[in-house]
Amino acid sequence: MNFKKEKLLTIITEVGLESLIIKDIKKAGATGYTVTEVRGKGEHGLRKDLWEHSSNIKLEVICSVDICSKIIDYLKSNYLKNYAMMLFVQNIDVV
Amino acid sequence: MNFKKEKLLTIITEVGLESLIIKDIKKAGATGYTVTEVRGKGEHGLRKDLWEHSSNIKLEVICSVDICSKIIDYLKSNYLKNYAMMLFVQNIDVV
Amino acid sequence: MNFKKEKLLTIITEVGLESLIIKDIKKAGATGYTVTEVRGKGEHGLRKDLWEHSSNIKLEVICSVDICSKIIDYLKSNYLKNYAMMLFVQNIDVV
Repeated sequence: MNFKKEKLLTIITEVGLESLIIKDIKKAGATGYTVTEVRGKGEHGLRKDLWEHSSNIKLEVICSVDICSKIIDYLKSNYLKNYAMMLFVQNIDVV
Repeated sequence: MNFKKEKLLTIITEVGLESLIIKDIKKAGATGYTVTEVRGKGEHGLRKDLWEHSSNIKLEVICSVDICSKIIDYLKSNYLKNYAMMLFVQNIDVV
Repeated sequence: MNFKKEKLLTIITEVGLESLIIKDIKKAGATGYTVTEVRGKGEHGLRKDLWEHSSNIKLEVICSVDICSKIIDYLKSNYLKNYAMMLFVQNIDVV
């Protein structure tokens, strides 16, 4: 079995950011993405005592380390502080 | 890029258990979760010859090893034997 | 905590292939699967300049290395060239 090592970047965030983030993903050079509608609660920002319920999206991007870093840098400087956003990375073997 | 090593705990189970499990997740100290509506079939319990179809949820929790162990212990002792439930853990790098 | 090392095989593909792929998954010996409705865009086939939008499914299978290889072989020879399909594998610890 021949696999290619790639990164799976998962972005869980507010529905309203979808189109903005997709522009960033394309600009960084990614060749595709998947969006799932999810529900979630979490702490964020100043409201650490609340478990707010909200309609979120999970955006997944399969990409190289470089493209992954570019997307993360962009999201960090534009959204991470002011919006509910969770970002994480996993190693995957792509067929 | 600075990442924090965390665990991603995935719980795939019956829709009806959602609110009970969320209480357990909070009690264990987790600070958020994501719920996705999924469909699935699987073997479980006494009915190994059936591929039952059902409406399930996928509950994902990002947490420390300790909180992950607490949640798993609780789910094992309360639900794993009597309900359709699949539990698995992955390493993730959180931004 | 006792875990069993398994593979998580993720198949992102066209909605229309669902029932065919599920037959292949069963034939390979897998004991269950999860389907999530997703949206996505990606390059594939001859149309590398397009980011086509489409309604897709994400099919996840937890299985052994052997069953995972069997499923991948089957999907490669039957669908990978002619359909929009992304296949990747991760290591998971199953409770």
